[in-house]
Amino acid sequence: MSDLKPYLRHHQRRIDAALRRFLPKESVRPATIHKAMRYSVFAGGKRLRPILALAAAEACGGDPECALPAACAVELVHTYSLVHDDLPCMDDDDLRRGRPTSHKVFGEAIAVLAGDALLTEAFAILATMAPCSRYQVQHYITELAQAGDSRRLIGGQVLDLEGEGKQLTKRDLIRIHEAKTAALLTASLRLGGMAANATPHQLQALTDFGYHLGLAFQVIDDILDVTQSTEMLGKTAGKDAAVDKATYPSILGLEQSRQEAHRLTTKALTALKPLRRQALHLEQIAHYLLDREY
Amino acid sequence: MSDLKPYLRHHQRRIDAALRRFLPKESVRPATIHKAMRYSVFAGGKRLRPILALAAAEACGGDPECALPAACAVELVHTYSLVHDDLPCMDDDDLRRGRPTSHKVFGEAIAVLAGDALLTEAFAILATMAPCSRYQVQHYITELAQAGDSRRLIGGQVLDLEGEGKQLTKRDLIRIHEAKTAALLTASLRLGGMAANATPHQLQALTDFGYHLGLAFQVIDDILDVTQSTEMLGKTAGKDAAVDKATYPSILGLEQSRQEAHRLTTKALTALKPLRRQALHLEQIAHYLLDREY
Repeated sequence: MSDLKPYLRHHQRRIDAALRRFLPKESVRPATIHKAMRYSVFAGGKRLRPILALAAAEACGGDPECALPAACAVELVHTYSLVHDDLPCMDDDDLRRGRPTSHKVFGEAIAVLAGDALLTEAFAILATMAPCSRYQVQHYITELAQAGDSRRLIGGQVLDLEGEGKQLTKRDLIRIHEAKTAALLTASLRLGGMAANATPHQLQALTDFGYHLGLAFQVIDDILDVTQSTEMLGKTAGKDAAVDKATYPSILGLEQSRQEAHRLTTKALTALKPLRRQALHLEQIAHYLLDREY
Repeated sequence: MSDLKPYLRHHQRRIDAALRRFLPKESVRPATIHKAMRYSVFAGGKRLRPILALAAAEACGGDPECALPAACAVELVHTYSLVHDDLPCMDDDDLRRGRPTSHKVFGEAIAVLAGDALLTEAFAILATMAPCSRYQVQHYITELAQAGDSRRLIGGQVLDLEGEGKQLTKRDLIRIHEAKTAALLTASLRLGGMAANATPHQLQALTDFGYHLGLAFQVIDDILDVTQSTEMLGKTAGKDAAVDKATYPSILGLEQSRQEAHRLTTKALTALKPLRRQALHLEQIAHYLLDREY
């Protein structure tokens, strides 16, 4: 795992530089909205989704550089969804990545609009992707729009809200995580692969990897919400239990949740086999995410 | 004007049918979000923007049919912006098109998410546009994303919110209306023109028309807010004065506002000259919008 840290840092820097280029400057009028957009985008996120996009391009034998617009677009969609999910009318969270949430700093109206603007900007940026022989701009747009739509990303948040205070089964929980987490992780990987002109076979490997990694990621997130402090998480710890939200630990217990995270990570790693040595960094990222648990 | 009513009705029906096809059914899970999306989209809107897209395709010598996905996309962007603008944290409106607003029926969380989903769906639908010799999918996406971004549609709402209770000049007001109204009207026309493979010359005529029509439209809206009842408007009348919002009538007075609407409409009509007879319906629509005033 010792090689991964510099790899992650290197890609984080590339992504941050690209985001800074793509997003309107804070001085552009009206300044408030541009300050709010940048506040949430440059809040110290791990850049997991865009890094997955770049690593997926690499895993398909391409130059990660060609996937940069797609990488930035998925990060903006992720950020917009956090800004809206944190609103008082939704999860009502005051803290995100160790800082006050957007609506705490800019007010609710600007937080709603900043989320809207980040979502809109994501598509503007994605439209700048260079076409390759297998994929054109419409394929990129469709991929991102579907991952973020009312059945996937947004639908997952609806199911999540509707599930609060209810007795959910493991199957219900998986359905929420498929929609809310796995869909956008998978799209990040697939967009990266498409930017590298991936074969249908390679794209399928990335899809299977993304699905299991996404579920594993969410199991681990649920575990961390129970076992870590607010300070370590950078967001309010124990939140799930406080709002009586069903989670893996609450349904399966901690030990079985850990086993589930291992099992899903193993499935994710198996899916990468067809991509061979080129998928080394994707493999390392899967291990790295699992290790967050400890 | 007698020919225009059947034309508008005919196009409204085509657009409604296409929107019904494009939007997920209410039965698709999670049902709440799909009910909320359809509730706002099928609330009896005039379909002005999508009709302008179809009429612009016609004005450039194309078949309006080819502009249908673009027409639906602009209507969804318009609808999402209304759903979010009506939220308690923004304009706090209970009534829209004569019915309770989305957050009144579905709650604030679902209203925020339904708006997000409509915006996302707009790009998914726009990605289905057939390319023509001059314009590809990336041009359509860029056009819509720019019209809806933090400088235009969203930026206009920010300026509008920030202007409440302040003494604005006519210049300030124009800046708000350019961003909040004229940009999306212009994009509707341009997308329709692009679907018909418009020449740069034709596109410029549509752009000039859209700019002046958009400003005229907003002046007339401001006038109607003063002179009409809530029942006639289908939304809360006298709202602008109640929240101390600067409007054309409040800055220029009613009579001068009417003159301004006439002046802007004349400019819009002049811009259409290069499109000749083919722009007949666009001309009629401009007259029709001006006549709302009486």
